[in-house]
Amino acid sequence: MIKLYDLALADEDIRPSPYCWKVKFALLHKGLEFETVPLHFAEKDNYPDQEHGLLPVLEDRDEMIADSGKIIAWLENTFPEKPLTSTPGERAAVEFYNAWLGAVLLPTLVPLLFVRIHAAAHEDDKNHYRTTREKKLGATLEEAASKPGLKAEAEAAFKTLAMPLAGFRFLGGDTPNLSDYTVFSFVMWMRSVTGDDYLELPQPVVAWVERMLDLFDGYARKAKRIS
Amino acid sequence: MIKLYDLALADEDIRPSPYCWKVKFALLHKGLEFETVPLHFAEKDNYPDQEHGLLPVLEDRDEMIADSGKIIAWLENTFPEKPLTSTPGERAAVEFYNAWLGAVLLPTLVPLLFVRIHAAAHEDDKNHYRTTREKKLGATLEEAASKPGLKAEAEAAFKTLAMPLAGFRFLGGDTPNLSDYTVFSFVMWMRSVTGDDYLELPQPVVAWVERMLDLFDGYARKAKRIS
Repeated sequence: MIKLYDLALADEDIRPSPYCWKVKFALLHKGLEFETVPLHFAEKDNYPDQEHGLLPVLEDRDEMIADSGKIIAWLENTFPEKPLTSTPGERAAVEFYNAWLGAVLLPTLVPLLFVRIHAAAHEDDKNHYRTTREKKLGATLEEAASKPGLKAEAEAAFKTLAMPLAGFRFLGGDTPNLSDYTVFSFVMWMRSVTGDDYLELPQPVVAWVERMLDLFDGYARKAKRIS
Repeated sequence: MIKLYDLALADEDIRPSPYCWKVKFALLHKGLEFETVPLHFAEKDNYPDQEHGLLPVLEDRDEMIADSGKIIAWLENTFPEKPLTSTPGERAAVEFYNAWLGAVLLPTLVPLLFVRIHAAAHEDDKNHYRTTREKKLGATLEEAASKPGLKAEAEAAFKTLAMPLAGFRFLGGDTPNLSDYTVFSFVMWMRSVTGDDYLELPQPVVAWVERMLDLFDGYARKAKRIS
């Protein structure tokens, strides 16, 4: 069976990584059976791929692929039934959603969530996580999270999604496609360390979140969150 | 023949309106013959649709449709050959590009361009244009345009387009679709009142601009700009 090495927090059932989530959704979309293997940041010795040392890593018989983008390309190639997008136009749109995430949504979510992931991380991970993330932020986790207006900026960013979702059930149109999985994976990241009322989202986005949580027998809805 | 009432500046050959451009591209995409009728902001008496008093307005025999969104829906309905999008996922993406334009690109372009459109507008339009636009901006045209960093912000916004355009010839994938026309119409708006070196755009976006200008026998490339 396909094995997915999936980043875990101190509670091994909490799996925050948006890149791992994107791959899980791709596997579910294709109806492929898989098991996840929880790994902490610090469990380098158990990492299946010493060269990368990054998750997700997917293992299938003698294949081992790291990097969510490469894994998804490999899945599309190897299991072409139930493709994750239908047209080159939809594939170009996935890239635009990715670019928008990087330019608009993540600059607001990253400083809000890093400090929460750190708090819920395994004790052995905390030093490594703090050091690497503070280098990225150019500030301490706590300083970055306390920048005024971050939540309002995140809420404003989510408003951009309300326009397509007011007229369509999914970013993919009538059914979910890779654009939905790409964006929703960051919602799952947020959900893993926050409660339902953390951000005030526009109604069409809230309705889409519920639809995404319902997919695949409620796979994402069953995912454990910090209490 | 289809008639499109098209907003003009003091020089009637300069047609800045992005909403009119979107309709022109849709007509060209469908291979429909049309003529444009230049109108100034102030020529209310010549407006084909007194109720709306807004352009674009499209006239076809006994039909008269205002509002670019409604015109495009009517064109898709009436001339279903050569559709402007191929799938519901592509149609949802058009809405996301629209939302991104409103949330990210236009807040930087609007204050930069309003003052230039005003300068090139017909003498009879200038008062009306200044009053309505300054109300929107909450500042004089000149104050709004001089806000520091606007150009850098516009350049940063255009970078988001570089990701899909690095891997695809068009936002529509292999061929242009309504997402290309929607976004490029705002490039045409900018081009009408600026020179080629006004903004520094990433290479994939520059290459896409050239491809868009080449479409339909160089229709957009032939469009007059202020000198």
